[in-house]
Amino acid sequence: MAHLLTRRKALGTALGMAGLGCLAPRHAWATSPAEFLHQPGITLPQLPFLYFLTLDITTENRHDVAQLMQRWTDAAAALMAGKPIPGLVDSDETYGLPHQALTLTFGFGPTLFTKEGKDRFGLAAQRPAPLADLPRFTGDQLVPAHTGGDLCIQSCADNPQTAFHAIRILTRLADGIATPRWAQTGFLPDFGPHQTGRNLMGFKDGTMQPNIADPAVAKRVLWAADDDKAWMAGGTYLVARIIRIALEHWDRTKTSFQEETMGRQKRSGAPIGGHHEFDPLTLKQTDKYGNPITAEASHARLAAPEENGGAEFLRRAYSYDNGLSYIAERWPPWRQGNEFDTGLMFLAYQQDPRKAFTRIFERMAKFDMMNQYTTHIGSGLFACPGYRKGHYLGEDLLMTR
Amino acid sequence: MAHLLTRRKALGTALGMAGLGCLAPRHAWATSPAEFLHQPGITLPQLPFLYFLTLDITTENRHDVAQLMQRWTDAAAALMAGKPIPGLVDSDETYGLPHQALTLTFGFGPTLFTKEGKDRFGLAAQRPAPLADLPRFTGDQLVPAHTGGDLCIQSCADNPQTAFHAIRILTRLADGIATPRWAQTGFLPDFGPHQTGRNLMGFKDGTMQPNIADPAVAKRVLWAADDDKAWMAGGTYLVARIIRIALEHWDRTKTSFQEETMGRQKRSGAPIGGHHEFDPLTLKQTDKYGNPITAEASHARLAAPEENGGAEFLRRAYSYDNGLSYIAERWPPWRQGNEFDTGLMFLAYQQDPRKAFTRIFERMAKFDMMNQYTTHIGSGLFACPGYRKGHYLGEDLLMTR
Repeated sequence: MAHLLTRRKALGTALGMAGLGCLAPRHAWATSPAEFLHQPGITLPQLPFLYFLTLDITTENRHDVAQLMQRWTDAAAALMAGKPIPGLVDSDETYGLPHQALTLTFGFGPTLFTKEGKDRFGLAAQRPAPLADLPRFTGDQLVPAHTGGDLCIQSCADNPQTAFHAIRILTRLADGIATPRWAQTGFLPDFGPHQTGRNLMGFKDGTMQPNIADPAVAKRVLWAADDDKAWMAGGTYLVARIIRIALEHWDRTKTSFQEETMGRQKRSGAPIGGHHEFDPLTLKQTDKYGNPITAEASHARLAAPEENGGAEFLRRAYSYDNGLSYIAERWPPWRQGNEFDTGLMFLAYQQDPRKAFTRIFERMAKFDMMNQYTTHIGSGLFACPGYRKGHYLGEDLLMTR
Repeated sequence: MAHLLTRRKALGTALGMAGLGCLAPRHAWATSPAEFLHQPGITLPQLPFLYFLTLDITTENRHDVAQLMQRWTDAAAALMAGKPIPGLVDSDETYGLPHQALTLTFGFGPTLFTKEGKDRFGLAAQRPAPLADLPRFTGDQLVPAHTGGDLCIQSCADNPQTAFHAIRILTRLADGIATPRWAQTGFLPDFGPHQTGRNLMGFKDGTMQPNIADPAVAKRVLWAADDDKAWMAGGTYLVARIIRIALEHWDRTKTSFQEETMGRQKRSGAPIGGHHEFDPLTLKQTDKYGNPITAEASHARLAAPEENGGAEFLRRAYSYDNGLSYIAERWPPWRQGNEFDTGLMFLAYQQDPRKAFTRIFERMAKFDMMNQYTTHIGSGLFACPGYRKGHYLGEDLLMTR
């Protein structure tokens, strides 16, 4: 369990927390300015398993939604502490399972505020500006059944059974108020202490992250701005994208072209022409012909804050594996058959998606060489508010007159 | 890593092996009578992650199949030893990942021998009697796209990325010879040393297993009989069933009725009226009214060797989680919406499915109270031959004149 302890220790250190319990803490409430707490599951490091669920609200009564958030807040605290939920018979699949690290993070989608032009719950005036609908990006192939959602839950754990158990319990508690819309599981194995994990493209994923251990960086990049809606204090915005990767195609591509596409070397993770993973990107260097050594259309360049006016977000991506899916290509080479239905469950937290994800991805969607291999097939946008001790999550929103 | 070491140690002890390497062994070839080795991934304990893949052969040439088995045998040895595969550029998603325990197990389906009445490869005479097609069982709702397969690969690992990596590599090596038919991933978290894991029904799964550490039991229950086809020496038969569990229904059922259904107590795993998990089942005891305390139609009773003329098999089941699927009930209470698409990837090894799985499950399919909650939606049957050092897997079959 050495890695897990390390991970917990790192978490405690990064957030300036003290007093970690023995088997706990399964959650990490970190304090923001004033009395608002940040939700767990946002600041790194990531636990290795994800169950991401969105839900549609089926009630027309705001009071029911408030009751759900009250129930969820209490249940989440119990689940993260490994305690039973009063009044609920547990399904017991995690009973006796040791070392259950778990974080639960909740968010509100745009459709909670306005759906088909209708102010469903009298909350339209409370919709924050950063929760503006994402634009359609070049190449988007979004499947409606895997897009949107009034509510979301990000459940992260050290094993898939614990991640799912929490979702199962929380879904039971939503009975009659909200119903599952779409789900995606994910994984990101532990590559060891201080090692960046690799996703299914075989490259390290997450080398470039804002240094949120620096409170000034976290305040600028991650947490809701001071002039955001009051109920979002201590909160952040989540962009979720299901990104299908054509692994068969990628695997037929030479490593040298993969590296050019990524703008990094595969095994070391170093920039093109660099030596170590954390060397600065070689954005200005040119070869003897005057061409940039890190291609203009490479993923790393297009993602770099330097190329995006300083814009950045905090990634919490997981690989996903949904087995096989059938494809039938009606043009040469007229292939048909099953391919791996795998990819990346991209999750990114930020102060304002308009200035971060959307700004960066609008160019990326047009130019990134990686788009030859990747397709965005699902999408979600969620406001993940902060939390006040003794109050339920979203209370300041849902109690608005 | 304590559990993993324990697991490896247990494996070594159970199989009477010696000389386990440091990070290796990633596989465990155990010797059978004569010079035949058993494939790894059959004898317990299970690694916690599964990727199960079946494939259809697309060639009409037996030589191609032989070439594939040669490639797979070499590649499997390299993958299980954590070594690169000569001549193949690795996809690298496991590069640098520590502690990759991996077992790979291969099998031949009935359709390799006879398909639609046709002897495809001149192997029909070599089809073993125990590889008789499974009958249709009461309640079967088999989906053709998740049933059958000419070949199968069971990849088990200590993380899902390693399990999938092996499948991805082996699928690449099958290009032009075989193509994926269906796949199912699974998980079974490590509940700790000497603890039986729980599946998504919340009950312990695998309490009753034949004691295969006893060579006489293994010879009787698990390994191909002496009078089986010669190429099956050291081999065994795998029955795979995708069993969907209606979790929402199960969760609405009182624990007392769940226990009556299962014929065991939920948390302890003890028999009804018993005290400890490994207490003998209370098959003969009656209550004061003369009724059996372990219900006639309970799962544990119907599965018990005592009730099946001694028939038994070795379970290697995993839970599966495929996210959500849409249901629309057209009768009261007229529910529609997304439900959890979860269940059990049932894998069982045995000497002869006709005398083990089929014998037991024919009664179970008719009478088991658990059938109210479970539906068999996919199925596969495979002959998993033994192995001779210096020869490829299946060589004795594929070289038959």
